[in-house]
Amino acid sequence: MTRFFVTKEELQPNFLLLTGENLAHARVLRLKNGEQVLLCDGEGTECLCTVSDVSANGISLVVMERRDSGTEAKISVSVYVAFSKGDKLEHVIQKATELGAYEIAAFPSARCVSRPDAKSLQKKLERWQKIAAAAAEQSGRGRIPAVRVCESYGQAVSQAAKADKAILFYENEQATTLKMTLEAGEFATVSLLTGPEGGLEPGEVEQARAAGLAVCTLGRRILRCETAPLCALSAVMYAAGEF
Amino acid sequence: MTRFFVTKEELQPNFLLLTGENLAHARVLRLKNGEQVLLCDGEGTECLCTVSDVSANGISLVVMERRDSGTEAKISVSVYVAFSKGDKLEHVIQKATELGAYEIAAFPSARCVSRPDAKSLQKKLERWQKIAAAAAEQSGRGRIPAVRVCESYGQAVSQAAKADKAILFYENEQATTLKMTLEAGEFATVSLLTGPEGGLEPGEVEQARAAGLAVCTLGRRILRCETAPLCALSAVMYAAGEF
Repeated sequence: MTRFFVTKEELQPNFLLLTGENLAHARVLRLKNGEQVLLCDGEGTECLCTVSDVSANGISLVVMERRDSGTEAKISVSVYVAFSKGDKLEHVIQKATELGAYEIAAFPSARCVSRPDAKSLQKKLERWQKIAAAAAEQSGRGRIPAVRVCESYGQAVSQAAKADKAILFYENEQATTLKMTLEAGEFATVSLLTGPEGGLEPGEVEQARAAGLAVCTLGRRILRCETAPLCALSAVMYAAGEF
Repeated sequence: MTRFFVTKEELQPNFLLLTGENLAHARVLRLKNGEQVLLCDGEGTECLCTVSDVSANGISLVVMERRDSGTEAKISVSVYVAFSKGDKLEHVIQKATELGAYEIAAFPSARCVSRPDAKSLQKKLERWQKIAAAAAEQSGRGRIPAVRVCESYGQAVSQAAKADKAILFYENEQATTLKMTLEAGEFATVSLLTGPEGGLEPGEVEQARAAGLAVCTLGRRILRCETAPLCALSAVMYAAGEF
């Protein structure tokens, strides 16, 4: 079923009008009277609607059922990724959204080659949020994950540390596995932190450990900076019983 | 440490010469006398070597230690993916190699839009094998996963069925999880089968079930055809205690 994201305010109780990009999209799809569509507020609530009128002026819908979206994960996973070169972050944002991430936060670290300035960051953030929205729609999610930027590595670490399970992945860690960390007690919120192309510096890893993050391995193979967060997120969703 | 892949025959017991692409690569890296490098036969054996001579004629190495590569997964996972459009298969091959796949097999299915002919397939296979080799080198693997093509969906299914755990992922399956399937008994070999952009047809799913594959969900979100195999592979590696 086609899924449109609207604002919370637009999700009226009885009748709805498609506007802007949604209207244009609906025209491309040639929606007809009587067809059913889903309208989601991007925060976990959705309305099952029936198309009641298609005219040159617009497309109106009747709300049949208002309900919680059934496709959100039971746990909230925040994915903290270091700035990286090229379109790798875009890739991570798209895939992490599909895989059910609650939010995605990008942060600078010592070995980051990519260091966008404030202006380009603002543009990037808008683009990233659009990528997350498109991936949420395509994967049938009821929530669009927030994409945000941390000002410093320290800020990323202190925010990540608030989760029930706060985990940093480090290629030089061999003894502590993600499994050991996840199986030591219940959790509802998880933070996963991974480094840039050149990896995190030992001092950064110790800073995170001191802030309370568990330092874990992702296996004996070196994963690229765009592969590591998605591998970790997949494993956490599996461990949490999502599939 | 820099890692070069050579043939099994080239991995001599005492002395070695770098040739071809490896020699060119070593010159770019400006290898010097006394430096240590790893030479792998791509089948799980590696030699720790010391550079003994760098000259215009070549680079020679002394073998210090011959050993099993320590970076291969303890389980063998075969990743069966349907032909897909664009460079999605290349993406899956690169990432599945990083994540430790034993082999990657591409197959045709009813809804595949991409149907390469024999000639273009031969070219693609060569390219795919190179991508796997590069990813194996970069991720520090001791083995280059084989990349191969199944002639038909039926062939893919009957080959996949031979594994201890043979699993097909289907978006309309809700009850059977990967976790239930993996936790029902020990396993050393796993096959993971995922469909093309348009999904597998119900008849194809039943064909696989009849051949003995377990039909599982990957969660309540719809994953893209290039995301599903990597999500499943990550989860299987996690479940097998790799990280």
